[in-house]
Amino acid sequence: MTDPQIERKLIEIMRVISESDKPIGARNIADELQSRGYNLGERAVRYHLRILDERGFTEKHGYNGRTITTFGRKELDDALIGDRLGFVITRIEELIYNTNYDPISKEGNVIVNLSTLDKNDFDNALDVMKYAASGGMCISPNIKIFEEDSDSGVYVPEGSVGIATVCSITYDGVLLRNGIPVKPVYGGILEMEHNDPVQFRDLISYSGTSIDPVKIFMIRHATSVLDVLDTGNGRILANIRTIPSSAVDKAQEVLHQLEASGLGNVMNIGSSAYDLCGAPVEEGLSGILVGVGVNMISAVEEAGIPVSTSPVSTVLDYKVMSKL
Amino acid sequence: MTDPQIERKLIEIMRVISESDKPIGARNIADELQSRGYNLGERAVRYHLRILDERGFTEKHGYNGRTITTFGRKELDDALIGDRLGFVITRIEELIYNTNYDPISKEGNVIVNLSTLDKNDFDNALDVMKYAASGGMCISPNIKIFEEDSDSGVYVPEGSVGIATVCSITYDGVLLRNGIPVKPVYGGILEMEHNDPVQFRDLISYSGTSIDPVKIFMIRHATSVLDVLDTGNGRILANIRTIPSSAVDKAQEVLHQLEASGLGNVMNIGSSAYDLCGAPVEEGLSGILVGVGVNMISAVEEAGIPVSTSPVSTVLDYKVMSKL
Repeated sequence: MTDPQIERKLIEIMRVISESDKPIGARNIADELQSRGYNLGERAVRYHLRILDERGFTEKHGYNGRTITTFGRKELDDALIGDRLGFVITRIEELIYNTNYDPISKEGNVIVNLSTLDKNDFDNALDVMKYAASGGMCISPNIKIFEEDSDSGVYVPEGSVGIATVCSITYDGVLLRNGIPVKPVYGGILEMEHNDPVQFRDLISYSGTSIDPVKIFMIRHATSVLDVLDTGNGRILANIRTIPSSAVDKAQEVLHQLEASGLGNVMNIGSSAYDLCGAPVEEGLSGILVGVGVNMISAVEEAGIPVSTSPVSTVLDYKVMSKL
Repeated sequence: MTDPQIERKLIEIMRVISESDKPIGARNIADELQSRGYNLGERAVRYHLRILDERGFTEKHGYNGRTITTFGRKELDDALIGDRLGFVITRIEELIYNTNYDPISKEGNVIVNLSTLDKNDFDNALDVMKYAASGGMCISPNIKIFEEDSDSGVYVPEGSVGIATVCSITYDGVLLRNGIPVKPVYGGILEMEHNDPVQFRDLISYSGTSIDPVKIFMIRHATSVLDVLDTGNGRILANIRTIPSSAVDKAQEVLHQLEASGLGNVMNIGSSAYDLCGAPVEEGLSGILVGVGVNMISAVEEAGIPVSTSPVSTVLDYKVMSKL
């Protein structure tokens, strides 16, 4: 497999070349990339151009520079199509790779969900979130609030407030950093009885969808998190990741560290659909069942406050998040 | 692999035994099965009981009959879990297997979607459906109408009308009967420009979801079928099935027969994401892109008429369906 980072650079370079109406040289390509936020020197551009030439995607015209070939243009179209139709798992794996939270030092990046809601609803929403967090309906009670005019890089529409909550996929990142090959497999609607997970009602695989499963269930208003908080019975959002069964002991150690550091909502670990509320896992793998972070936000929606949420949105330094 | 028909019978028998408060014999089990709609004689029950004994799921107590073992109870729980959490692909494959429509004789079962809507909206809905069908937004213009009091086996709520439309998965059934190994892979939202398919905006895999992808997109109101009908531009529902690339010629022959028989909405056949509007297919496979049958129903919803739809619902004799 080729390095996705290199592929991305190759595509950006092809894009620059294809957008030029005449042959373009390495120096001008480097300048153009700079203005698009890619910090790639002339020498590095030359290196990548040689790869593109070898693949037949670009063509050199003496000292005038390169043009894109028909073959290269088709490749670029395909790549851009891939860009436009992003499968959720690709983005999730990128975020998992960028997680570096260390449960011992309590430092590093966690993955967060981003929600926006009307400023006027903010105080009520916080009350519901506190209630939900106190009932364990979160990964961490720590959140980060974004105002509309902050330079955080997080876009918050006018009149709205942004709220970042810790996402359950943070587990996957921390497990990976501890050397455990981990794969998020399903998001679903989990039936709870007497505060115990009982049975998935619906499941959607992370690997074959361009819309986040958790987002699909939020749009369907399929949860009753407030009922679970009030009575112990109802439906919450949960997900499953798999690890090799031989890594269960090591995973448990890491999950205990995470819990000790204040991050935790693991409901079960097991190797059969019986242990995992009906979610099937492949032979030789074990599944880790986690109640997701946005249950806190689903509770806000159930309370009648409109919220727009992007699950598994970005990474954030855990230090900047503070307790509800 | 064990025969799913036998497995289903074994599970029903275990269920009967587990529900009895004392050991129960083959004759009583057969009677109980009869009352549940399973036509299985005493001799057949005995045969299945021997399999259950061998697997250690049931235990014989002399002439008193059988009880279920702890091991059997766990198996039954697992099976029932599987029952409750049905992945869409399992049901679809069952329907594909039950399709026997022959495009030459125009006889046999096709797969249909079932929609229900308020009786008072029926005339308006038919007008929209005729408009959609005239613009090619269907697999077949033939539909079947179900009244609330029909003995058709199709449940239609009081005050509603049921409408069956031919489902695109019928193709998969007909291809399979012609010896082509076929697998439905994705349902999605397809962008149309000048009446041509251009690019999938979203895709969900059939194989990892308990909710039909097409149903998910209908709930999101993601289509603009009426726009496509009016202007050639907009978003429709489409799906992709894969076949071995070596079977493309044979498939094309079958698809031409289908089209000649009046069933058709194939948009493209190809082996790259480029040919398939961004939908990825595995090496060695080709994808068949089809505009789905419920686009006709999405048009009705877009026209402001509430409809409830179960895509890929059941099989129906094509002869009982008649032209809009």
